Formats: sequence, C-alpha cells, structure tokens
Amino acid sequence: MSGSNDAYARAGVDVSAGTATVARYRDVTAGWRHPDQIGSIGGFSGLFRLPGDNGRLLVGSTDGVGTKLLIASQARRYGGVGRDLVNHCVNDILVVNAKPLFFLDYLAVGKLDPDVAAAIVGGVQRACAAHECALLGGETAEMPGLYAPEHFDLAGTIVGIVDAAAIPDGSLVKPGDAIVGLPAVGLHTNGYSLARALIGEGEWNQPLPGGRDGITYLDALLAEHPSYERAVRAIEAVAQVKAMAHITGGGLLDNVARTLPEGCKAVFEQARWPVPRVMAELVARGDLGIEERYRTLNMGIGFTLVVPLAAAEKAKSAVADAAVVGWIESRRPDERAVVVHPART
Amino acid sequence: MSGSNDAYARAGVDVSAGTATVARYRDVTAGWRHPDQIGSIGGFSGLFRLPGDNGRLLVGSTDGVGTKLLIASQARRYGGVGRDLVNHCVNDILVVNAKPLFFLDYLAVGKLDPDVAAAIVGGVQRACAAHECALLGGETAEMPGLYAPEHFDLAGTIVGIVDAAAIPDGSLVKPGDAIVGLPAVGLHTNGYSLARALIGEGEWNQPLPGGRDGITYLDALLAEHPSYERAVRAIEAVAQVKAMAHITGGGLLDNVARTLPEGCKAVFEQARWPVPRVMAELVARGDLGIEERYRTLNMGIGFTLVVPLAAAEKAKSAVADAAVVGWIESRRPDERAVVVHPART
Repeated sequence: MSGSNDAYARAGVDVSAGTATVARYRDVTAGWRHPDQIGSIGGFSGLFRLPGDNGRLLVGSTDGVGTKLLIASQARRYGGVGRDLVNHCVNDILVVNAKPLFFLDYLAVGKLDPDVAAAIVGGVQRACAAHECALLGGETAEMPGLYAPEHFDLAGTIVGIVDAAAIPDGSLVKPGDAIVGLPAVGLHTNGYSLARALIGEGEWNQPLPGGRDGITYLDALLAEHPSYERAVRAIEAVAQVKAMAHITGGGLLDNVARTLPEGCKAVFEQARWPVPRVMAELVARGDLGIEERYRTLNMGIGFTLVVPLAAAEKAKSAVADAAVVGWIESRRPDERAVVVHPART
Repeated sequence: MSGSNDAYARAGVDVSAGTATVARYRDVTAGWRHPDQIGSIGGFSGLFRLPGDNGRLLVGSTDGVGTKLLIASQARRYGGVGRDLVNHCVNDILVVNAKPLFFLDYLAVGKLDPDVAAAIVGGVQRACAAHECALLGGETAEMPGLYAPEHFDLAGTIVGIVDAAAIPDGSLVKPGDAIVGLPAVGLHTNGYSLARALIGEGEWNQPLPGGRDGITYLDALLAEHPSYERAVRAIEAVAQVKAMAHITGGGLLDNVARTLPEGCKAVFEQARWPVPRVMAELVARGDLGIEERYRTLNMGIGFTLVVPLAAAEKAKSAVADAAVVGWIESRRPDERAVVVHPART
C-alpha cells in the first residue's frame, strides 16, 4: 500500500538482497575462524586479541562513503568526502571504546586527476590528523572501463586499540536506563540512493525549505559526517556508559537493536530531538512510513549512548547539543527491540 | 617513436598522472605525521610501532584487484579474485617479514547478487584461512549509478605484525649478493588495462599459443596471484635474506629499485627464467620495448629475495621453482638502480 517502499525500491537498492547476502556470508565463513578473533558488539567493527598481550585488543573496521560520492563528483566538491570516510570509521570503532591507531584509504577512479585525488586524500589526512591517527598507507587505482571518467569510489580501513576492560558491557543495560543521543548534521553517509532519487540535480542550488540561512540542498546533502569521539569521551568522563551505537545504514531501528541484551528494548520519542530539514524534506517527498524513516535515515541522531538514569542529566550536560532521546524498557519476546514514538505532525 | 607507448596509452592508464598524484599526496600529507608511524621499506606497506610494546610493529597494506575484475565479471568467474586480493596483500607485508593477523574486504557492486557476492567473499575467506589470518570484517556496498549492474570492485586491507629485529635490513645489501626469484604464474594483478586492450574477448576461449595444454587466454588471464609466504619462510630457514620485493605494478624496474641501498644496482638476466606465455604474447602484440615490459609486467618473476652469494644455491634449493635470476653490482650515481639483460630472441 505504501508509496514509501516504492520510492526506496526506485532508488535501486535491494534490501532483501542485502539480507540474503549476509546469510550467504555466514555460510562461506563458517568453515574456519581465527581463535583470536572475538565476537564484535553490534557488528560495527571486528575485534582481535593482540598476540602476546593479555589485556588489549585490536579493532578493525572497513567502510565506504557510498553514493554520496556521486553527488560530490557531480558537484566537484571533493574536500569533504575524506572526512566523511574517516569520521565514519572512527565512530564505528568508538562503539567499543577503541582509540584510532592508523587508517588506510582506497581510492578508485575512472581517470586519474592529481588535483582531485589530492583534494580527496587531503580530506582523509586532515580527519586522521584531527584524531592523531596515522594515515599509514593506501591505494589509488585508475580503472578505465570500471568507472566513468569523472566517477570515483572511496573506502577505507581503520585500526584501533582498546583495553578489554574498557569495552562497554552491554549486558549491564537494564530497564530504566536512559539513552543519550548525539545530533546528526545530515544524512552522514547513508540514504543517498534514496536522496538522489527524490532530490534532482536541478534543485541542488536552491535553498533548503524551512530556514532563512541560505543553506542549499547541495550544502545539506554534502554536510560532513561528524566524529563523535570528543563528545563520547566527555560523557564517559562523567557517566557510566553501558552501550553505544553508531547510527548508520539501518537507522535507529537496526543499529541500536544490535547492541541491546535480550529482555530490553529501546524506546525513542521523536519529540525529544529535531529532525534535520533535509530529512524532513525526504520524508515528505518520499511519503516515507515510520519504518522506512528510521531504518533508512538517521532522522537526526548520529550516535547513541545508554547510561544509568541517574547519570543522564550529567551526561547530557557534558556535551552542548546532546539530548536524552529515549530510555530502556523491558521487552517481551514478541516485541520489537527498538520502538520510535513519532512526533505529532 | 615506439608503438609500445602508444599501446599502453591506448589502454587508458596515464602513468604521468600517477607520478603527479604521488607528489601531490606527499604535499597534502606533509603537515602532520604520527610519531609512531615509521618509514616503510620500498613502500609495499606501512609500519606502526605498537603502543606500549618495545619490540613489535603493526604492518598495514591496502590493495585492490584492478581491472582484472572486468575480465572476471565478464567471464562470470568469481572464485579467484578473492585469493588474488588476499595473496597480493600477504605478499606486500611479507616484504618486511610480517605475519598476517587479520584482513578486511571492501566489495562494491552495481546490483547485489547474493550468489556472486558469496563466491567473491568465499575466495577471500579461503585465502585468509590458508594463512591463518582472520577475516575480521568488511563492507559490501550496493551503488547503482556508480557501477554498471554486472560490475564490481574489490579491495582489501591486511594487518600483520613483526618483531622489529626481524625486518630485513636492506643496508646490508652489497655488490656480489645474489637475487633469488620466485616465479609468477601470470599477470597476477597488474597490467590488465594493457592486456584487455591487446587481447579481445572474442579470443578468450582460444588456446594460448606456445603450448599443447589446452590453457585458454581466459585461463591465463585469470590465473590467481599466488602467496609467496611459504616459499619465503623456506628460504629464510636456510639463508640470510637482506631485502625482498613484491613484483607488482612497476615491475622489476620500480619494485626492486625501491628496496636497494644507494651504491647498489640489481642486474637481472632474462635467460635465467622463463617468461609466461601470456606475457610473451602481450610483448609481441604490443611491440613492448624493454622498459615497458619490465615496468608494466612482472615478466615471470613474482617476488625477489637478495641473499649472500654463498647462500644462493641453498636458497634456490629450498623452493622447487626458485631460480637465481640476477645479482647485485655496485652502482655509479649516473646508473639506473635496476638493469635487465634481455634474452636473445
């Protein structure tokens, strides 16, 4: 019945193929597993016991920027995508409290333009330096025939380190805990196939509705994925943090669900935080239902932390734009792990 | 004057843009460098001092499979590219004697087909398992608009570990040392833009000239990049290894040059090892000059090790198909760092 699923399928992304692929990966990797590889928390990164070291683990995560790149290349704005990539990866390993050690980038182009490549890798370098993370290496590949001359793909891998004792223990999450949310500045690096289907290039230079700040659609679409490292460290300094989630593809519904123990659900109340204007516009244009809004888009929350209720105010106050966006309730087996109460519209 | 440069330029790869890009990267990364990041040897990988550990370093390398992927996707043979990728990365960190710890893959597709993705990642997993290297994670991205529906890109990152004392000390290389070569089985993962320009799809199922084994052009083009780990360990068990090089893009000329101390040159004698038939065919069709043969193609050597002359026979005997392929001579400032004496034709 909904126009929303139509809108998303029109964008060319096949969610069921994704689910099937994950299942097939489970099959092909079932035969052998390294004894020092340990289960990840929520699947944001992989953890590996450092050989000959009792207390520490290496944490690795690979990610790409996705079809946000098509907007960046079309608009010839190359400076931000490197930061998008590094900050995404930093946040992925931050979920287990890992400190970044080094990063390696992969840039593939149809036709190598040294200025464009330098602008992209310069952004990677700046974001690495901001985290005192070494840019240890990378690969730049020119592949005519695979990429159109003006197109490129950008992916990267971060490696961090964490004391085993410092990894949040999600089993401590219990009903009554509060969820602190850190604000998203835009789509970050997810939902761009949908956004590209709903916002045409002809509109990019028009002002985004709902404000008088002169921000254009293009500005909003290319707003950079922020790093939450500083905010998380500030909250950790004043509150016990039991679980964290980086809100990427899958939205609040999938990403938070993966970090909760059985018997707990997360309940979000949309009235507690603002939806960025570009997302409100996508929801309206695509007639997106609740399910799709909170699975495809971050809807304004980029990172969540579960803290004891008693510490919630202190945690919130540690970061200027943090908000208490929900709480943990007990969950019956027939209930969903994440519920969002939409704002009255 | 040469038809050879024309042939390579026709393949769409701009070597001068590559050189300019490397220079630009040097500029954009000049502002800040992590104090624990140390200079790599020959640039095959990056090295990072393990925090709180005096003796060990982490070693990271990112690589892609390149336009060999276009042949694999066109031929619908997906099983080998994962091994190509992992083995390439294993060899890159083997140059500094690092033992693989874990690997992360990046697969980007135009349209996600779970069977194809599982075939590709299954190959990655098998190659990881063969090296007791954890497949720690990865990213699979569906990006309609960036990739044609049947196209995909595949890259990956390996992280290994090495004792600082076990890193080969290239400064020990001196005139009179021998160079042991390990055989390449084909193009490995380099030279495919050229190969695709010179060998048309209509010929793929025809037998490769020069043999009666029924090997087709396609078989030869998709022959998998081997891992040299076992061979290198066998040689290290019987001989002092002063320097190693993985012969990838840039061929013997670039890759070996980067590992030699000043005052030394490497002299190879083509008569000492066979050129794989597919490469002989490319040389003939493209009318490739000496320079281009040994810079674009591996010409039959996949990995080199510099050993003392007295240990050369023992090193060679440790691996069935190893050969002494050249030696180290003293180099005057006006001489090139690598010279290849071509076989009489």
